[in-house]
Amino acid sequence: MASTPTDQSTQCSQLLPKFESVRGFSHVLSEPLEIEDFVVQSMPDASPIRWHLAHTTWFFETFILKRFARNYQPINPMYEYLFNSYYNGIGEQFPRPKRGLLTRPTVAEVMTYRREVDNRMGQLLLEASAEESMVIAPLVELGLHHEQQHQELMLTDLKHALAQNPMYPTYDSSVEPPTGKTTSQSWQEVEGGIIEIGHAGSDFACDNESPRHEALIPSLEIAGRLVTNGEYLQFVQDGGYNRPELWLSLGWNTVQSEQWEAPLYWVRQNDAWHEFTLGGLRRMDEASPVTHISYFEADAFARWQESRLPTEFEWEAASQYVSEDGNFAESRYFHPAPPQATTGLCQMLGDAWEWTSSSYTPYPGFKPPEGTIGEYNGKFMCQQYVLRGGSCATSKSHIRKTYRNFFPPEARWQFTGIRLAR
Amino acid sequence: MASTPTDQSTQCSQLLPKFESVRGFSHVLSEPLEIEDFVVQSMPDASPIRWHLAHTTWFFETFILKRFARNYQPINPMYEYLFNSYYNGIGEQFPRPKRGLLTRPTVAEVMTYRREVDNRMGQLLLEASAEESMVIAPLVELGLHHEQQHQELMLTDLKHALAQNPMYPTYDSSVEPPTGKTTSQSWQEVEGGIIEIGHAGSDFACDNESPRHEALIPSLEIAGRLVTNGEYLQFVQDGGYNRPELWLSLGWNTVQSEQWEAPLYWVRQNDAWHEFTLGGLRRMDEASPVTHISYFEADAFARWQESRLPTEFEWEAASQYVSEDGNFAESRYFHPAPPQATTGLCQMLGDAWEWTSSSYTPYPGFKPPEGTIGEYNGKFMCQQYVLRGGSCATSKSHIRKTYRNFFPPEARWQFTGIRLAR
Amino acid sequence: MASTPTDQSTQCSQLLPKFESVRGFSHVLSEPLEIEDFVVQSMPDASPIRWHLAHTTWFFETFILKRFARNYQPINPMYEYLFNSYYNGIGEQFPRPKRGLLTRPTVAEVMTYRREVDNRMGQLLLEASAEESMVIAPLVELGLHHEQQHQELMLTDLKHALAQNPMYPTYDSSVEPPTGKTTSQSWQEVEGGIIEIGHAGSDFACDNESPRHEALIPSLEIAGRLVTNGEYLQFVQDGGYNRPELWLSLGWNTVQSEQWEAPLYWVRQNDAWHEFTLGGLRRMDEASPVTHISYFEADAFARWQESRLPTEFEWEAASQYVSEDGNFAESRYFHPAPPQATTGLCQMLGDAWEWTSSSYTPYPGFKPPEGTIGEYNGKFMCQQYVLRGGSCATSKSHIRKTYRNFFPPEARWQFTGIRLAR
Amino acid sequence: MASTPTDQSTQCSQLLPKFESVRGFSHVLSEPLEIEDFVVQSMPDASPIRWHLAHTTWFFETFILKRFARNYQPINPMYEYLFNSYYNGIGEQFPRPKRGLLTRPTVAEVMTYRREVDNRMGQLLLEASAEESMVIAPLVELGLHHEQQHQELMLTDLKHALAQNPMYPTYDSSVEPPTGKTTSQSWQEVEGGIIEIGHAGSDFACDNESPRHEALIPSLEIAGRLVTNGEYLQFVQDGGYNRPELWLSLGWNTVQSEQWEAPLYWVRQNDAWHEFTLGGLRRMDEASPVTHISYFEADAFARWQESRLPTEFEWEAASQYVSEDGNFAESRYFHPAPPQATTGLCQMLGDAWEWTSSSYTPYPGFKPPEGTIGEYNGKFMCQQYVLRGGSCATSKSHIRKTYRNFFPPEARWQFTGIRLAR
Repeated sequence: MASTPTDQSTQCSQLLPKFESVRGFSHVLSEPLEIEDFVVQSMPDASPIRWHLAHTTWFFETFILKRFARNYQPINPMYEYLFNSYYNGIGEQFPRPKRGLLTRPTVAEVMTYRREVDNRMGQLLLEASAEESMVIAPLVELGLHHEQQHQELMLTDLKHALAQNPMYPTYDSSVEPPTGKTTSQSWQEVEGGIIEIGHAGSDFACDNESPRHEALIPSLEIAGRLVTNGEYLQFVQDGGYNRPELWLSLGWNTVQSEQWEAPLYWVRQNDAWHEFTLGGLRRMDEASPVTHISYFEADAFARWQESRLPTEFEWEAASQYVSEDGNFAESRYFHPAPPQATTGLCQMLGDAWEWTSSSYTPYPGFKPPEGTIGEYNGKFMCQQYVLRGGSCATSKSHIRKTYRNFFPPEARWQFTGIRLAR
Repeated sequence: MASTPTDQSTQCSQLLPKFESVRGFSHVLSEPLEIEDFVVQSMPDASPIRWHLAHTTWFFETFILKRFARNYQPINPMYEYLFNSYYNGIGEQFPRPKRGLLTRPTVAEVMTYRREVDNRMGQLLLEASAEESMVIAPLVELGLHHEQQHQELMLTDLKHALAQNPMYPTYDSSVEPPTGKTTSQSWQEVEGGIIEIGHAGSDFACDNESPRHEALIPSLEIAGRLVTNGEYLQFVQDGGYNRPELWLSLGWNTVQSEQWEAPLYWVRQNDAWHEFTLGGLRRMDEASPVTHISYFEADAFARWQESRLPTEFEWEAASQYVSEDGNFAESRYFHPAPPQATTGLCQMLGDAWEWTSSSYTPYPGFKPPEGTIGEYNGKFMCQQYVLRGGSCATSKSHIRKTYRNFFPPEARWQFTGIRLAR
Repeated sequence: MASTPTDQSTQCSQLLPKFESVRGFSHVLSEPLEIEDFVVQSMPDASPIRWHLAHTTWFFETFILKRFARNYQPINPMYEYLFNSYYNGIGEQFPRPKRGLLTRPTVAEVMTYRREVDNRMGQLLLEASAEESMVIAPLVELGLHHEQQHQELMLTDLKHALAQNPMYPTYDSSVEPPTGKTTSQSWQEVEGGIIEIGHAGSDFACDNESPRHEALIPSLEIAGRLVTNGEYLQFVQDGGYNRPELWLSLGWNTVQSEQWEAPLYWVRQNDAWHEFTLGGLRRMDEASPVTHISYFEADAFARWQESRLPTEFEWEAASQYVSEDGNFAESRYFHPAPPQATTGLCQMLGDAWEWTSSSYTPYPGFKPPEGTIGEYNGKFMCQQYVLRGGSCATSKSHIRKTYRNFFPPEARWQFTGIRLAR
Repeated sequence: MASTPTDQSTQCSQLLPKFESVRGFSHVLSEPLEIEDFVVQSMPDASPIRWHLAHTTWFFETFILKRFARNYQPINPMYEYLFNSYYNGIGEQFPRPKRGLLTRPTVAEVMTYRREVDNRMGQLLLEASAEESMVIAPLVELGLHHEQQHQELMLTDLKHALAQNPMYPTYDSSVEPPTGKTTSQSWQEVEGGIIEIGHAGSDFACDNESPRHEALIPSLEIAGRLVTNGEYLQFVQDGGYNRPELWLSLGWNTVQSEQWEAPLYWVRQNDAWHEFTLGGLRRMDEASPVTHISYFEADAFARWQESRLPTEFEWEAASQYVSEDGNFAESRYFHPAPPQATTGLCQMLGDAWEWTSSSYTPYPGFKPPEGTIGEYNGKFMCQQYVLRGGSCATSKSHIRKTYRNFFPPEARWQFTGIRLAR
């Protein structure tokens, strides 16, 4: 975001179109849903759609309107408690695993809440002085990126909820994702040495991408495309889920306790593999990237292939060679698609988040922002792995090459995939 | 669904008005609800309203239409699996604790399901021959009583779900339950000896009320009315929840692990006790019966009072002296009310289910019906206690003096109450 | 116990030989053990042998020596906490599931504790006046019966602990239990009517056997002997563990969650069924009574046989026809044996505790003793079933026809068996 | 076991004295124990002493004797199953959480097992040819280091078990650890740049210390000594355990669910802080290092101090400046002691394992050894943190500056401590 406000426009007023567009996309995503679909929480890690819509609104109300809007009266004092996710600095939180037990505020009431907050936000963005804007605009940017994160979670949480239903309901099958013909894997060289890692410049980035710093990486080869369903199927057929020597110890425990035998949404039906997708149950396409696998599975697959996962630094080094195009939420495929090229480095952005072998830790010298906003990222830097590149459920305007996503190694409900290195 | 039984009316055709009325009452109860309220399951023991509406319909489809309706095609083959509660004879069941994770069929689709089954049922009831009626009519009766049971559960499950919400939503506050002035307890004598227990005659009754048989009871005194909130409050204030000597061992364990300090829906707010009711949060009325207490609490209270709970046989013996009037679902109070008389035996029917000290066991010579319908009651005769008399959530036409309800001793979400004996 | 003390002897002094004999039997039972065997607790329901030896001693110290012995100084103040089982009236208890984590006091120290308490008890029994004896003697009787209960638990807890070891260690194989030839089941008639139930007379009995009262029983037939391994094997081979229609609902849940496929200690080895016994792993004898089955299994077996379990009143009525002989702990078989006769009512006492269909409830008018001793039985009268008749691990002098043992329906580690009725 | 290597001494024969000494130290550590102490397992992460003694013996039997000793007959075929820790390549393992339920083989039998394996090992070491020695000697080295690891676990597992006992039993109080006078913290500079990390040379090292490789570290200051009890007490008194802003999110969850309020073995008694030690309960010494804290606590303390934990690379870079002396198991303090110097870098080796901020990951290019021995380390490289420097329970001959120990962030039962960086 370039910041050269003219006399009449402030940083804030310039943000208004983006504010409306990002907030509006939450409604676009909600359109195909029945009211019932907004309510359920299919596991503690997921949240009801109702909750996502309210929480992202709560974020603007709590961190911006309550602090900066004149004479602001909270729309409902109880919402502060109900829709606080994990900000201890704000106060106690309604217990996360019980989010799916609430039926009020209703979807209609949540939509009213959104509308009212949006109105006040619109007013504030227009009226804020240039000086006020310097404080408010970065918070608005953060709030919009926060909303985009939740838009991705809306899709993945919804998919998980619909998958509980043996009738395999369809969310949106209006756009059919392409299928393809499998190409052989190619390998791209990445030169070793000291490289710069992390966000540079004045555009928006999350705190966890800073500070930019030097890192030492070895020379390596990185796979030209994501691992395909077809390749992963060979791993399954080779007994991959029954061979402890391929797995981390915790991974093997999980395979056994959870009785994993295939990726999360693979369904064996009438002697053929299918995938449950947001467009319903579909025949599995062997050329498309495997998705919904845990770190444990990605790691075991790599070992089976006698290769490994890249570190997040290696990934970031490789990413300099690629454009920022990709299969994002805008495609409305809501599913990874086969690579569009057969050479070069493909699918680095979009399609599926790529597990790296890097634990999620602070960059050297990392300091979370002062105050409650500082709870956004830093306190989660433990027992998670970094994923890079975004997915088919990520908005194009949300992702960056320096973006660090993170999940625990057993998580499977995100659009996760595998890129190999060696 | 027109109902014009001809002269040649059969048992079935005579049942049609009752069929329409009972089935319709499920919709009456659903009217105040938002769509969101139909979806949630607040604990494994409870079910979503959607599920109750569908399951009671499934009962008619499975046990009647599939067997007796000509050329009957199941409305959706998947419903057999989704809406089977616990009939192993029918097939596998969708896991009970996951009922609240389903969003489809939607409420509208469930209502369509009900309408279609009702149409076919109406047709069958009109067309069944006198001979067929002899088989079908008892099943219809059973299905209607089954639906009435679920209507009560709809109210108690809904109350439990709404209670999860710190905003204390109101279900229906159109009829305010009366409050009263506490009267002192009176005691009624019941003569001992050999008495007849269980259902007699040809009216409908559940299998667990049979066979009628002799039982020996001692002479006793039974309390004239239910224990009031005011009396129970004294127990609370006397440290009842902190004195292990008053409790069964399992009860004491439960008090500690669940951190019970008062009945389920008592709420301390602004230095006064309130009750969460289906009409919202209300100031506690001391003259009204205490409700939503477990067997453990009823038993501890009785011990504190140096009295005891009656056995189910003693209760049935005492019940011969009372009329069948009471505070039932028809009052739309949906809450127990103070006794209407100050002498005699009051509140035996309606208001609150009365915990007896009797474990739920088969009557001597009990045989469950042949076939899957035999799973209705018999297999639950273990680790539960018998409750008698119905509650403010029971339909008047559903209850009988010989009726045996049953719940595990820790259950609190039903409208349960305490009648003492000595 | 007749009580006609002579001039020189008091009730207490007359008890001394019995005191020494019962206390000594705990040591007899401990002899075959390695020190390691005294330490472990293989499940929360079981206790280490060390703990049993100390707790039974604690009972005498707490309820007798501390109250009646002159200038009595507790041997170790910490023992009051460590060896209190469940008496809230005495104070807090060391958490039951952690009993197996303690290594001190050592076995040698526990033995010293026993010796010191025995010395003081011996002294007290000799010195108590006739008047004091009237208070003390009943407590001593209670303490000795309490110790005999724990002697049985020592055997069953030990068996459970040894069974965890894939090497199948032997406790005592000095006396080989007899095997036999299966005889066909015979049925004995029991006449119905009003009978007297419960303990009569001045001999020792537990509080739960009182008050004696009238009960009404139907006429019935009761099986002449216990169900044999051979009969139970037919149930297993007939798919008994895979047929939900044979089981109570809770039983079926347990079969599935615990993956039960046979009685607790049945072991399939080299194509033959074996039983793990206190004498080691032995080939299963088809003529011997089946043992280590839960109430759920007893009930399902009876249903499969188209018969039922007797109530505890029916059992007590039938017991008047039998002698008090049987296969008790004194035989040192420590395992049920085939019936010695082929006609009449056999094995009513000894061999295996017989599950009745009666929930464990207080007899009409039951009052637990005043004070902490009142915690002995009454507070457990919930969610358990009554068993009658004693077992091969019970001392002959401990059992009575009116004796009521009780366990939850899923318990299998006691020597439990099945007698049918119809 | 005589050891008279001839002139033609082999690598194996030269190892014999070390073999005898290391194996003997397990017995030295066992001497103060009662038999009961060898049996218990106080949590799934810990093992009984019996098991450690047997498992370390199993290691030599399985990986050396079975492969290299002529005509070797396993001492007991069941031991292969019972004493296999986690080597899937060898076969199934007796379930880890049940190790404390076994009472056989007895301690005496385990000692016999050790003696027999030691005899055969002694023979093999003497008789192995120079060529054979090249294969066997590295395995013996590994087995001895493995035994030393378990010797440390014997001490920490034992401490955890004894701590369950409210009588606070003493293991060994023969040598009183010194107390001291608190000195102020000093800070040592470490220069940044590319450094060599990992093991070099031909001495023994674990696979996880290889390959030696370059890493880039920033310039930093590292604390001159470990954080003291006194400093940590200030954190406690400043409400450290009640301030979520100081904690990682998982750490805060753990503090709340486990109700942590102080380090694991701190005991408040008579208004003074004590520590449970292997020498019994002792008054807390403020100058001694705090120990038995989790990564979460180390991290929160550092945040409270406005500093941080070092990475493992930073620690290794700093370690080049220190000697290899320290307070190890040989001191028999079995507890951390105050620093001996007031300047320079103290306590880097010995006293307490130092939590680093580094997740436990493979070094670039890491390859576990072929075969089952490869399960030793690699498969645990997930969800653990690296600790450096050894502790008061580590043998001096076991530790190296490149040594990488690892535990999950919630682990507290090891002798863990805190060194700050900034």
